[in-house]
Amino acid sequence: MKGAQAILETLYGAGVDTLFANPGTSEMALVRAMDDAGTVRAVLVLFEGVVSGAADGYARMAGRPAATLLHLGPGLANAGANLHNARRARSPVVNIVGEHAREHIALDAPLTTDIEAVARPFSRWVRTIRTTAQAGPDTAAAIEAARALAGPATLIVPADVAWSEGGIPARVPAAAAPTQPEVQRLDLTADWLRRAGPRALLLLGGHALSARGIAAAARLAAATGARLAAENFNVRMARGVGRPYLPKVPYVGAAAEAFLGDVEVLVLVESRAPVNFFGYPGQRGTPVAAATHVLTLAAPGEAGVEALEALCAGLRAPVPAAPPAVARPEMPTGPLDASSLAATLACCLPEGAVLCDEAITTRTALYELLSAAAPYDHLDLMGGAIGEGLPLATGAALGDPSRRVICVSGDGSALYTLQALWTQARENLDITTVICANHRYAILVNEHLQIEGRAPGPRAWPLMSLEGPAISFAALARGFGVEAVTVATAEALADALTAALARRGPFLIEAQMVVPPSAG
Amino acid sequence: MKGAQAILETLYGAGVDTLFANPGTSEMALVRAMDDAGTVRAVLVLFEGVVSGAADGYARMAGRPAATLLHLGPGLANAGANLHNARRARSPVVNIVGEHAREHIALDAPLTTDIEAVARPFSRWVRTIRTTAQAGPDTAAAIEAARALAGPATLIVPADVAWSEGGIPARVPAAAAPTQPEVQRLDLTADWLRRAGPRALLLLGGHALSARGIAAAARLAAATGARLAAENFNVRMARGVGRPYLPKVPYVGAAAEAFLGDVEVLVLVESRAPVNFFGYPGQRGTPVAAATHVLTLAAPGEAGVEALEALCAGLRAPVPAAPPAVARPEMPTGPLDASSLAATLACCLPEGAVLCDEAITTRTALYELLSAAAPYDHLDLMGGAIGEGLPLATGAALGDPSRRVICVSGDGSALYTLQALWTQARENLDITTVICANHRYAILVNEHLQIEGRAPGPRAWPLMSLEGPAISFAALARGFGVEAVTVATAEALADALTAALARRGPFLIEAQMVVPPSAG
Repeated sequence: MKGAQAILETLYGAGVDTLFANPGTSEMALVRAMDDAGTVRAVLVLFEGVVSGAADGYARMAGRPAATLLHLGPGLANAGANLHNARRARSPVVNIVGEHAREHIALDAPLTTDIEAVARPFSRWVRTIRTTAQAGPDTAAAIEAARALAGPATLIVPADVAWSEGGIPARVPAAAAPTQPEVQRLDLTADWLRRAGPRALLLLGGHALSARGIAAAARLAAATGARLAAENFNVRMARGVGRPYLPKVPYVGAAAEAFLGDVEVLVLVESRAPVNFFGYPGQRGTPVAAATHVLTLAAPGEAGVEALEALCAGLRAPVPAAPPAVARPEMPTGPLDASSLAATLACCLPEGAVLCDEAITTRTALYELLSAAAPYDHLDLMGGAIGEGLPLATGAALGDPSRRVICVSGDGSALYTLQALWTQARENLDITTVICANHRYAILVNEHLQIEGRAPGPRAWPLMSLEGPAISFAALARGFGVEAVTVATAEALADALTAALARRGPFLIEAQMVVPPSAG
Repeated sequence: MKGAQAILETLYGAGVDTLFANPGTSEMALVRAMDDAGTVRAVLVLFEGVVSGAADGYARMAGRPAATLLHLGPGLANAGANLHNARRARSPVVNIVGEHAREHIALDAPLTTDIEAVARPFSRWVRTIRTTAQAGPDTAAAIEAARALAGPATLIVPADVAWSEGGIPARVPAAAAPTQPEVQRLDLTADWLRRAGPRALLLLGGHALSARGIAAAARLAAATGARLAAENFNVRMARGVGRPYLPKVPYVGAAAEAFLGDVEVLVLVESRAPVNFFGYPGQRGTPVAAATHVLTLAAPGEAGVEALEALCAGLRAPVPAAPPAVARPEMPTGPLDASSLAATLACCLPEGAVLCDEAITTRTALYELLSAAAPYDHLDLMGGAIGEGLPLATGAALGDPSRRVICVSGDGSALYTLQALWTQARENLDITTVICANHRYAILVNEHLQIEGRAPGPRAWPLMSLEGPAISFAALARGFGVEAVTVATAEALADALTAALARRGPFLIEAQMVVPPSAG
């Protein structure tokens, strides 16, 4: 069989049955093989940044990698920012990147680039297939690498490798189980928890933020008095009514220092010791006090849930009563600000929803108020590269079609990869997008103040303002075939959410936010 | 002064007075310095692919570099595809990329990447500023590199280098003149032209396609019988009525082989020996016959115009009569296909216009028919990375505000960087965008046929079709604040063009093309 077919059969045999694609000439043999095989489902995407963001969202919900299909070095570069985010999310992604036919590379045709060099900063594994016989085995190696190294693995496929005969599919062994906790680390942690009581803080990240992981952590907290917290950005967190509330390590460095100030022992459970998102003049880079002892119970990718449960058993932690029922907030009324928008979402979110959060300056309120929503999963942007919210939602909806997906995005951030809406419409995905339209890069106004000690002046303000001309997200959504409305009050937002969540397919709500007067 | 201010003063002192920006936290000191200085003009762009494409267009029209302002590795990656195009266009671009504060890098905060590694595949020069004292001199070195190496130079600026005191602006020496032709090469070329007559072909690229270069080449052709041709993709070509017509080396390999088949000597004038855009099964990668002698009169970046004029003098080539007046085509009527769209444009194009061509499957007709338009400049996509048309037009309009800019784009290609429209509206640029809406990646249908020997089948067709849902470019344009109409006939296109070209500011015309029935 052809190399292209061997690649697809290897993917499909390993359970990689969904591929986000923006192909070009170098990928035609792979496209034709899809036509022949009819196994791997290809989802067309209009821009590569959507491809990689969707693959991240898919992996987070499906628990297995999606493939991508990208065109040469520039196509891969377009996917780079969201591959960075996927890498930080530890999401397995199998990139299939077409390359020129092998003899053509040396001719330095216009699209020739060093694709391996483009791939490396955003991939945990990179390989170019050298011969058609290697197409199957190298694909298998890419899948294994994406799983084992927890991130994007990039496989570069010369066009002639794909179109030539001589391919053989390869089998991929089952994924290895995550590393189980060592007895020594469990014993050490148990000792610390017994001794430090409320001056111990269990910091959860990764899969430890599943419902099971959080429940085990809550048992430990009840038994030992330890505090619990989540990282500020999380891959997927089980939240809502009936689940223990975990405060997050604050984003702002000074607040994070206060939060962590009296912690004697910081126990990391699939998390990392906190560092500030950015450096600021005269500030330390990490909010962890020098006197705090940092203990790794489970590193990212290790079996944090099992470790927590083993600790519960070892400490004979009783199963605590269910957390007190939290009343849903009153349905708010009037103009939309971060609080009223978040409260409205908390009232309207359906049980089992997935919330993709790129709300930026609205996200603190969202996190707090959604603790009173029906049980749901909360997915954050992990790498800080703005422009993943809508793609992430697209992939999440395909990764678990049984769920309703709600994406809450800042207006500035939604504009990087808005093309995701078209794929949502084509695939008729149950995604409701809420744009928090404050007509500015609001976070930059804060950051300017923090770094420069003053508000942006008249020549800086236009670099943070999205006014002049006003952007109509409702018009943009309709242009991509997605129905949309604009709302300016909590009541109208509630009505729009109710209507959107009662129908199939995508819908966009442009929420006009009350904002402080313009600077400058 | 602060490092940020030293960077801006060095840029401004060297004539780099325009900066396309999509800043983030790491760039706040640079934004604040713009506020203080008020010299460099910052143009806000919503997505980094527009930043780099605009910088390319600016350089082609202004003849000097623009700067860009990008946020960390992911922001630079988003700019990568159009930096690739700028590199292939030999356009000088000075990238200013913010980096974390130096002490913060080792903490591996979420946005940390190896920015130098991200930059290298798309830059001709890369440097990270190590100290604030170096901010000025390193900026000067970046400007010199962008000019001398003819492409993107990437300067990475740690946030604390920018916000600290101790910067000193640096002066940039005047750009060196291009290498003048050597007498030996002139003599050798003259000998070949005398001997080969019509079996000599002068292949022009780069600045040799200026009005002066083409005129000199036409004198040589008239005097010696040599054929003239242009490369298939060109940075900026003087075209239209009253200027000699240069056929292009065809895009399709077989046609290019036929075009070049009987050429005894191929004389390169700021061009490269042709290679096919892609490799195909069983085809050679280059259309140049093995027996053809390839002679470089001027390499890209060398003084091709002076070389042609020196040859004219040496061969005592008389100034030929002006080329015969070409009648403008009849104003077409009826449904829009490639020919009628191109003919309508040829009738409506105002004198001195700049045409940015990412028309893909419409570009052959466009090139042929626009030879009868009023004199204008034709700018091609140089690196083949789709998604530069609208950004290129944005930069071209800012690079020479005296010109009307018309951008002709395929619908698929316009969707990569459509955010350019918002910047066109904000800056009130005189740009008319014509979208050739055939609702498909039409070129891929051809490429699939050429590589796989058959049309795309039912499961491949959805990867080439932009139907389901239909995309409304008029709605998308309005969403970004740009007026727009949809037309389906040549008469309506002519009316829309006439109206658009009579007003200030941007306008978009969605041209619904007649297309063959869907495959699959």
